Amino acid sequence: MTAIAMPAWILLDPLLQDWLREDLGRGDRTTQAICANQTQQGKAELEVKQPGVIAGLPLVHRVFQLLDHDIHWQAAVSDGDWCECLEGKRTAIAQVSGRLDTLLMGERVALNLVMHLSGIATATRRYVDSLAELPTQLVDTRKTTPGLRLLEKYASQVGGAINHRMGLDDAVMIKDNHILAAGSIATAIALVRQQAPFPLAIEVETESLAQVQAAIEHQANIIMLDNMPISLMQDAVQIIRHHNPLIKIEASGNITLDNLRAVAATGVDYISTSATITRSPWLDCSLNLYPESSQKRKQTAQYFQ
Amino acid sequence: MTAIAMPAWILLDPLLQDWLREDLGRGDRTTQAICANQTQQGKAELEVKQPGVIAGLPLVHRVFQLLDHDIHWQAAVSDGDWCECLEGKRTAIAQVSGRLDTLLMGERVALNLVMHLSGIATATRRYVDSLAELPTQLVDTRKTTPGLRLLEKYASQVGGAINHRMGLDDAVMIKDNHILAAGSIATAIALVRQQAPFPLAIEVETESLAQVQAAIEHQANIIMLDNMPISLMQDAVQIIRHHNPLIKIEASGNITLDNLRAVAATGVDYISTSATITRSPWLDCSLNLYPESSQKRKQTAQYFQ
Amino acid sequence: MTAIAMPAWILLDPLLQDWLREDLGRGDRTTQAICANQTQQGKAELEVKQPGVIAGLPLVHRVFQLLDHDIHWQAAVSDGDWCECLEGKRTAIAQVSGRLDTLLMGERVALNLVMHLSGIATATRRYVDSLAELPTQLVDTRKTTPGLRLLEKYASQVGGAINHRMGLDDAVMIKDNHILAAGSIATAIALVRQQAPFPLAIEVETESLAQVQAAIEHQANIIMLDNMPISLMQDAVQIIRHHNPLIKIEASGNITLDNLRAVAATGVDYISTSATITRSPWLDCSLNLYPESSQKRKQTAQYFQ
Amino acid sequence: MTAIAMPAWILLDPLLQDWLREDLGRGDRTTQAICANQTQQGKAELEVKQPGVIAGLPLVHRVFQLLDHDIHWQAAVSDGDWCECLEGKRTAIAQVSGRLDTLLMGERVALNLVMHLSGIATATRRYVDSLAELPTQLVDTRKTTPGLRLLEKYASQVGGAINHRMGLDDAVMIKDNHILAAGSIATAIALVRQQAPFPLAIEVETESLAQVQAAIEHQANIIMLDNMPISLMQDAVQIIRHHNPLIKIEASGNITLDNLRAVAATGVDYISTSATITRSPWLDCSLNLYPESSQKRKQTAQYFQ
Amino acid sequence: MTAIAMPAWILLDPLLQDWLREDLGRGDRTTQAICANQTQQGKAELEVKQPGVIAGLPLVHRVFQLLDHDIHWQAAVSDGDWCECLEGKRTAIAQVSGRLDTLLMGERVALNLVMHLSGIATATRRYVDSLAELPTQLVDTRKTTPGLRLLEKYASQVGGAINHRMGLDDAVMIKDNHILAAGSIATAIALVRQQAPFPLAIEVETESLAQVQAAIEHQANIIMLDNMPISLMQDAVQIIRHHNPLIKIEASGNITLDNLRAVAATGVDYISTSATITRSPWLDCSLNLYPESSQKRKQTAQYFQ
Amino acid sequence: MTAIAMPAWILLDPLLQDWLREDLGRGDRTTQAICANQTQQGKAELEVKQPGVIAGLPLVHRVFQLLDHDIHWQAAVSDGDWCECLEGKRTAIAQVSGRLDTLLMGERVALNLVMHLSGIATATRRYVDSLAELPTQLVDTRKTTPGLRLLEKYASQVGGAINHRMGLDDAVMIKDNHILAAGSIATAIALVRQQAPFPLAIEVETESLAQVQAAIEHQANIIMLDNMPISLMQDAVQIIRHHNPLIKIEASGNITLDNLRAVAATGVDYISTSATITRSPWLDCSLNLYPESSQKRKQTAQYFQ
Repeated sequence: MTAIAMPAWILLDPLLQDWLREDLGRGDRTTQAICANQTQQGKAELEVKQPGVIAGLPLVHRVFQLLDHDIHWQAAVSDGDWCECLEGKRTAIAQVSGRLDTLLMGERVALNLVMHLSGIATATRRYVDSLAELPTQLVDTRKTTPGLRLLEKYASQVGGAINHRMGLDDAVMIKDNHILAAGSIATAIALVRQQAPFPLAIEVETESLAQVQAAIEHQANIIMLDNMPISLMQDAVQIIRHHNPLIKIEASGNITLDNLRAVAATGVDYISTSATITRSPWLDCSLNLYPESSQKRKQTAQYFQ
Repeated sequence: MTAIAMPAWILLDPLLQDWLREDLGRGDRTTQAICANQTQQGKAELEVKQPGVIAGLPLVHRVFQLLDHDIHWQAAVSDGDWCECLEGKRTAIAQVSGRLDTLLMGERVALNLVMHLSGIATATRRYVDSLAELPTQLVDTRKTTPGLRLLEKYASQVGGAINHRMGLDDAVMIKDNHILAAGSIATAIALVRQQAPFPLAIEVETESLAQVQAAIEHQANIIMLDNMPISLMQDAVQIIRHHNPLIKIEASGNITLDNLRAVAATGVDYISTSATITRSPWLDCSLNLYPESSQKRKQTAQYFQ
Repeated sequence: MTAIAMPAWILLDPLLQDWLREDLGRGDRTTQAICANQTQQGKAELEVKQPGVIAGLPLVHRVFQLLDHDIHWQAAVSDGDWCECLEGKRTAIAQVSGRLDTLLMGERVALNLVMHLSGIATATRRYVDSLAELPTQLVDTRKTTPGLRLLEKYASQVGGAINHRMGLDDAVMIKDNHILAAGSIATAIALVRQQAPFPLAIEVETESLAQVQAAIEHQANIIMLDNMPISLMQDAVQIIRHHNPLIKIEASGNITLDNLRAVAATGVDYISTSATITRSPWLDCSLNLYPESSQKRKQTAQYFQ
Repeated sequence: MTAIAMPAWILLDPLLQDWLREDLGRGDRTTQAICANQTQQGKAELEVKQPGVIAGLPLVHRVFQLLDHDIHWQAAVSDGDWCECLEGKRTAIAQVSGRLDTLLMGERVALNLVMHLSGIATATRRYVDSLAELPTQLVDTRKTTPGLRLLEKYASQVGGAINHRMGLDDAVMIKDNHILAAGSIATAIALVRQQAPFPLAIEVETESLAQVQAAIEHQANIIMLDNMPISLMQDAVQIIRHHNPLIKIEASGNITLDNLRAVAATGVDYISTSATITRSPWLDCSLNLYPESSQKRKQTAQYFQ
Repeated sequence: MTAIAMPAWILLDPLLQDWLREDLGRGDRTTQAICANQTQQGKAELEVKQPGVIAGLPLVHRVFQLLDHDIHWQAAVSDGDWCECLEGKRTAIAQVSGRLDTLLMGERVALNLVMHLSGIATATRRYVDSLAELPTQLVDTRKTTPGLRLLEKYASQVGGAINHRMGLDDAVMIKDNHILAAGSIATAIALVRQQAPFPLAIEVETESLAQVQAAIEHQANIIMLDNMPISLMQDAVQIIRHHNPLIKIEASGNITLDNLRAVAATGVDYISTSATITRSPWLDCSLNLYPESSQKRKQTAQYFQ
Repeated sequence: MTAIAMPAWILLDPLLQDWLREDLGRGDRTTQAICANQTQQGKAELEVKQPGVIAGLPLVHRVFQLLDHDIHWQAAVSDGDWCECLEGKRTAIAQVSGRLDTLLMGERVALNLVMHLSGIATATRRYVDSLAELPTQLVDTRKTTPGLRLLEKYASQVGGAINHRMGLDDAVMIKDNHILAAGSIATAIALVRQQAPFPLAIEVETESLAQVQAAIEHQANIIMLDNMPISLMQDAVQIIRHHNPLIKIEASGNITLDNLRAVAATGVDYISTSATITRSPWLDCSLNLYPESSQKRKQTAQYFQ
């Protein structure tokens, strides 16, 4: 498993702080009252309650750090690892210790992140595994929860997908509406070449072989076959490959686990789907907190020895 | 259907602007190149592609307004309405017109919001309908996507649920860990009464009848029955009601559409579940854009006459 | 004296940083010129110049830390302590040492905070002491200086009061105008029950026994007796207690140190006043700075040995 | 009365928005439930309940505008006007109309501002009136509530004072500690001349005639006589005037309404005090709201005809 | 001249507002005192004092709008136009009218922008004109003034250049140091293909033919010839073109107006230089303000009739 | 060389962070892929490639620190030092070591800052040296790149100039347009004295001896001679000095290295020019990075032994 680099903290910290403030509001009334002297220490274990691919572990650590610098963290697994979990048993995968009020205040935000992202990584892994030995790669889309783009795309990578463009500015995508606005694929591409930064790839969405031909002719870098029947896709792939083997081909539209391999068999380079992000349930996890002196530690399966 | 008030724009605008900037990055390279003269006008229809409960329509309008004040908007349905959609047919539910580049730049953010929130409202409606004639009410939890708390809770209301506390500051919730930290339910409640704002309700999470008794004795306002078997819940409800009919009772833990009515039958006031938010797929929608002069308008079922 | 938890730094730091920038503008022209090499060390003592209750000491420390992490701090008293001060003598209550320019740049903001908050705590203590052996508790209001809500409410707690709601979102308060808008107390409460998060307490402002009756009937959680004459208040308390001992009663309007005990004698649970925040003069304090090597230390009474 | 320019909205709007969000938190639970359809219109009158100098009227208007652009506002008085108020009678000084929920949501922030600032303006006017026919002018200090510097200084002007420096960057003030750090007044001034922007005035705080002499010699622009006895002040003024009539002289320290004229009589140009800001109670005002159709309007004295 | 789309206001407004606040500080002391009643109207003309290419005109309009919505603007030229200016004569190119204080407060920020950007556009036009009939295109770099990236790149486009990547995220650039870190060009490209979004172009910086070969072999999309002598560049171009005509070739390093055509003659697609941004003096402009009623209008050449 | 104090980090950090985010966008795609394990260490040397005055060294250090606290930094020179550089040779002036990805991500922003500021300091030094033995001092203006005011003014000081006012709020400058708006210099000054903070200096821009006389008469603190011929300037200086030697005189308008000494010879106190900021090319620098273990270190002249 290749390590995937978590986005830089300078990009994530403002988000994490906003999210902590969203949950805290004017303060954690329960914890502040009960831990008012602010000295009690505690420890907690992060546990998975379902099997799946973990994504977002470093965020759990960071969330607590942003509340209190003196936090200790130890993880038994890494992002991208598949964590087993026997029926009804929880499996501890990381430990965090520090001031008890810090652990209680940060718990919900930390869990919401790791559960949501692990849900995405787990769903993605399922699609990716299904493409296993094939050269076709799974890619995501811009259908992401507002505010979570960087992290959901990260989870998508952790699950084994390759990211598609991250936003409206790191690749050109000429769609139906752009062609209409410009008058033709030819004009659309010409206008883009005059104005967009020159390294940007130009992708054209096509629905017919005529459009595929136009995209080829005007040197699109990527051609998307949108919602085409399998046989049409096969023809399109053949035409494109014949013209220039370097043009990348993406299949898109109504991709499911059921038709994934059939689409891949057409020879496209990439298959894009939003389902891994927009239809994936959270992976159930919990943070089991207990005071330093407590005997309470639940009987859980442990990745720790 | 009671109208649910959308949170005030002064709270939402900074989020919506951040989300637009998240997608735009340094700018929409495709649209800016093709609509560089920034004068073309266009119109678009928001269409649902699956039946479900719509939530977030006013956000679609607002997203475009934040890009350009001169936008025209007309909606044929309201948040909370169930929108039908025949198999494979799209149903137009709102129209927006204005500068074409504005429509193209805001499309994805607007759709991501309305699809995600409508997904939550639709899932919630299913649970709520299942409780239909019963007095028990469905409530949500703090398991919400970071940054989306206000809107996901709004969608939950639109679906028919009642909100639980919005964050750590608008109610006290004494959990397992708080009891451990304080030493007892009695001490925990006493500390809270000394420090929390006096109007805050105090809820205690209980796992046994002994804990229920302690919560009653120290005048908790709300008692949560956490993961209790049905028969234990029945006993707890009876004890609490007998003591004081004004204490509110909430059932929580592993609620599904299957066991929902059985839990409600115990007589609890509220049943909380996170599934409507953490496990609901997005409702498929699209924004069909076309230039003012175009004949392109797709054959779609229309809520408009 | 129970320790009161200072709001979490993640909530306060952005405020403290803004306040430092408000005073610094484009920089401290005097200090930057005189300490341009930025290496001189210094020490300072925080001194009270009037007797009173100290509130905000941890903020003084934090203000300097936000300018320079390497600051040393030692406090001889804690928030909530009454600090004596002989006529015309200053009493040192804390020491801070570090880079001289840091001490000079942060001085004014640190002092403005501790003086303002200690003024509130001192005024509050006077009201609270006057209720001493009575069960009635003093509560504050939403009349707070814009931007200072969290800290003024904290000072109010430090002075011995209990906080009323912190804002418009952690309790429902049905006032005159809301009743008018809704048509009746009954409708107002019904609408709130449909839309507000269920744990929120519902308080109704009443000016007559008829309104008190309506509030009782529709199960208000808290009834406020607004500007009622003492005898009317007595009647209201009797009616409410008779109906249900769990309803909380708050007296409000024109509360002074003179009528405080008379109002408390009616048996209300809470008396609210804004005077402790809106009419309290600052407690005079100063920060006496001197270079490390200096002999200058003034003759001041010391809490330090 | 000269009109005083309110600071530019581009500077104030971010503050006003933060302050509205501080009060709203996650939303006005009461108003949103009762005015959920968001269409009811209403009108309100701003009333003073005590005589005093009004400051901050344009802020009341702006607060509502920031919530909803379609607000109508009419003021019968202007900032700086003395508003009479008969005992126990309220006097309406402005009207605002618009959506009822807007009026209810913005009320508290608007009132908190105008009450606090009018309190400062009223206290300042008292000091200024007491200097009436004398050439000496009252000035304020940097003892202002954190976050409110611009507005409290504005209120101070509205009350008739002249502002002292607004922060650490628009004038140089060499204090006790700076002299100590530099070694002498001479060195301190020399260092400042080398580094500070050349138009900045250099003020030196003096406690003795020797210090006054040093300040004169090194061409200080302003000399502050700090906590000097009246007779010493007289000597200092004479020495300074004799040397150069253009040097400005400021008296500071323990200024009260009682000793104000005696200090002014020494011939100083400016007398500075923080009391008008740090010791002034709020001026009591209220916003009386009522639905458009209502007959409720209270019998109040009116500035409106 | 193709119109170049100004970046969306939602991206620029926060910058423009920060820049206005940077100049205003706590307020325009001069203007606020002299225009305290805030009603005087005025008109101003934007004039160029040197011939050059104008860039940033819409920003001048926007700067004033952000201070006051009711501003009127009329421009006689457009961004990208060459504006003549006879020796010692100023040429009016736009008019703005509105509140006089608004014009005075925004003047400096508006001018600083248009002067700086027009300086860049003018310098760029000189380079671009020198490549006139050749197919090679001029591109810029990431050497831009911090905070001004979007606008300096816009000015570069207005001058006739094509933008290179806008930041570290819209193209991959494998430099010397990256090759060292990865071990080889082969490994570097392989790692990037695994992790970067798939549409991103991969550019490799090369200093020798061996590196050029490696880049070709591993399918780099763009090959940069860094600081190569002309003859080496010729060889490199030949090798690359022979291999695959679609690989883009960029020449970089020590480009001047003197060697520009010689480099272009090697047949490279792009020549990059930072000089047009980092070495271009501002184009001298002024804003000539005068009150509505004034006769003062200077005798200036006019683009207006 | 007097040390010039860098503006406080609490003022600069938000800018530096924004600038890093401007370059990073959604992340450094190249570095993150190649250094995905985030553990490789590296070292880099900051080298000048042209002789000049260095300004901004502490910013280079801070930029890396903001990305990663564990960075090591050592500088061989200080801001204000003239750094020699033999033709075609680079001279190392500072070393930084830490995580390799940190060095690669921060490089461009760090360099852009130090190159731009050193360009300004170098140009300024040339002007200042030309005034060498004369009492007249060089001052800057408000023509600064938006967002860079604090740092460009700092570089100006580092180059040897004195700063003029930093913005619209730390001095009053009555220009042509203000006089027109007020009606006369007399009225303009009177209005300012009523409203501006009293320590602010009042500068009047004059174009004729009549205006100089008016400015003297109404006690302007600074008189600017704007665009006057040398002989007129001489007359103006004589008149002003004769009246009061304490009034400061500033010459402004079309200052070049050629006429600088002639203007100074008129006896003015200050000569202001914007050319040192608006017309100075960047000083060429580079950051030479190499992995810890590498032998790659280029042969560079070294300030390090």
